[in-house]
Amino acid sequence: MSQNLGKASVKPEQPVYILNSGSIVGTKEGQGPLGLLFDMVGNDDMFGCGSWEEAESSLQKSAVQLALEKAKVKADDVKFIFAGDLLGQSIATSFGISTYQIPLLGVYGACSTCGESLTVGVMTIAGGFADRVVCVTSSHFASAEKEFRFPLEYGNQRPLSATWTVTGGGAFVLGNEEALAAYGDRPRAKITGMTVGKIVDYGLKDSMNMGACMAPAAASTLEQHFVDFGSQPEDYDKIITGDLGKVGRKVLIDLMKEKGYDISEQHMDCGIEIFDGQTQDTHAGGSGCGCSAVTLSAYILKQLEERNWKKVLFMPTGALLSKTSFNEGKSVPGIAHGLVIES
Amino acid sequence: MSQNLGKASVKPEQPVYILNSGSIVGTKEGQGPLGLLFDMVGNDDMFGCGSWEEAESSLQKSAVQLALEKAKVKADDVKFIFAGDLLGQSIATSFGISTYQIPLLGVYGACSTCGESLTVGVMTIAGGFADRVVCVTSSHFASAEKEFRFPLEYGNQRPLSATWTVTGGGAFVLGNEEALAAYGDRPRAKITGMTVGKIVDYGLKDSMNMGACMAPAAASTLEQHFVDFGSQPEDYDKIITGDLGKVGRKVLIDLMKEKGYDISEQHMDCGIEIFDGQTQDTHAGGSGCGCSAVTLSAYILKQLEERNWKKVLFMPTGALLSKTSFNEGKSVPGIAHGLVIES
Repeated sequence: MSQNLGKASVKPEQPVYILNSGSIVGTKEGQGPLGLLFDMVGNDDMFGCGSWEEAESSLQKSAVQLALEKAKVKADDVKFIFAGDLLGQSIATSFGISTYQIPLLGVYGACSTCGESLTVGVMTIAGGFADRVVCVTSSHFASAEKEFRFPLEYGNQRPLSATWTVTGGGAFVLGNEEALAAYGDRPRAKITGMTVGKIVDYGLKDSMNMGACMAPAAASTLEQHFVDFGSQPEDYDKIITGDLGKVGRKVLIDLMKEKGYDISEQHMDCGIEIFDGQTQDTHAGGSGCGCSAVTLSAYILKQLEERNWKKVLFMPTGALLSKTSFNEGKSVPGIAHGLVIES
Repeated sequence: MSQNLGKASVKPEQPVYILNSGSIVGTKEGQGPLGLLFDMVGNDDMFGCGSWEEAESSLQKSAVQLALEKAKVKADDVKFIFAGDLLGQSIATSFGISTYQIPLLGVYGACSTCGESLTVGVMTIAGGFADRVVCVTSSHFASAEKEFRFPLEYGNQRPLSATWTVTGGGAFVLGNEEALAAYGDRPRAKITGMTVGKIVDYGLKDSMNMGACMAPAAASTLEQHFVDFGSQPEDYDKIITGDLGKVGRKVLIDLMKEKGYDISEQHMDCGIEIFDGQTQDTHAGGSGCGCSAVTLSAYILKQLEERNWKKVLFMPTGALLSKTSFNEGKSVPGIAHGLVIES
């Protein structure tokens, strides 16, 4: 079999389609530049729940519901769900998707989790283990601040290198040819290759500058991707990172130049797109598992559908920190997973 | 392709072997009934590190090193590593395995994570995406108590239904036919089928009685497994849960009787095997991601190698709680993943 490509990549032989997808976001994201594109925008960031964690769980639940409805699929016809979030022990997932009773494989890759869930989902379908799977990830500004930094009530100052965790959930229904035939409509896109990242740790310790912590991991995965696929930056209409923000973007472009690749033309970052840095006080940009997931669902797939772009490399980036490791003085390692998505 | 079996199961068409494996445990586990079987036993539970979290990271690092050496494989020849642990944001993994520079796909399923990592690892190989992968999981009594319950210094009383988190790490090198040929030795076993569990929540809220919280999930996966594979309890030499302990074992056997299956003859629980409940003050038994992983590596695979058993169902069980969800009054849902392992 030739689905095994290069050192860190795979190339599905059987086509795997994103049949459809769903996105739900909070108020701030709804007011941002992509606001009109999301399937659903909350009236407030509690989404009718009693705690921030419950609110994040409801994001996963709603995103899956939207994706299933749009893909005309019943939960019962989904073989596996690949799901994850940023909270300790992934509780947004544990309490968010249990109602669907779909066999669950939980994934964790910090903010790269959206990319990881799609990677494992594609392998599951292309390997012939399932006709349909769902991949879902979420993040919530308030639950993330509580989990990683300070209680919101503390009102701490944020440096300009800090990013703003996106309140949002994005879900994707992946399917094979038979699932596409049953769907009977145009798929949103297809996923034609993946490069899995490794942990890259430059020793940075600043949890308020995650862009710089993650950029070396993005550069590592990107270089490996070009080698494994024998491709160049100009082979992609866009090379899209998850949540490097303005600081991380600059670091990534510089690191790639050192490696002999100029990606300044193609590079785009979901975290920079999702907020208006001038007016929304989000500093370096948006972040979180939800950031890349909702931007993929609402914006990137739309551009591919409308053939404005034909082929993109979608590469969510993750900062592997916890409050425990941060408080113990450990560094913030990064990881990034890349997926080739074509119209 | 027919690797897609039933509602929640898969059956690899290409054989996937456990080429070899490694286990490392703490002092208490070393003094237990399986003590002499582990590859390595620490002199103390800090393993030469400065914090409990670092100690747990070193368990993953050592387990992987042992498994690679025993499987005569270099890290460079491993395509992916599937890894996870119980700590918030899986930091034992983030800081434990980075030295190997193997592309990482992080998994989370609480104490079922060992089963999940093997499940996704098998699909990756049987799907033709990799020749060799490593699956590793760990837990540490002290880091887990700190993460989920009370600081050790508090010296809290533990009810008899409580389990003792195993300090240990277990790693497995999986490979296909070519990898086996390159290894040139007998594999430890082969994995011939998997059933993925869903979240099952009976509403129990007692984090000191995780056996009862997880037993309904184990029963759900077990029943689905029998249906998907058309099998019966007597088709297995052993049906092995991860860490139900004495309370959970009783609940599982009762629940299965209600479903029409008598598993009292075949059932075994890693958590009950690993400690001597009479003398080691471990109450209901051992628990944690490390519990099922080290028991599989040191004891179960040995029984299969020696043909004392020919076919077992290995089913790690997980309690999907976090200190945040627990403190917010939420229940403790369970999940369990089953794997058929044959000699």
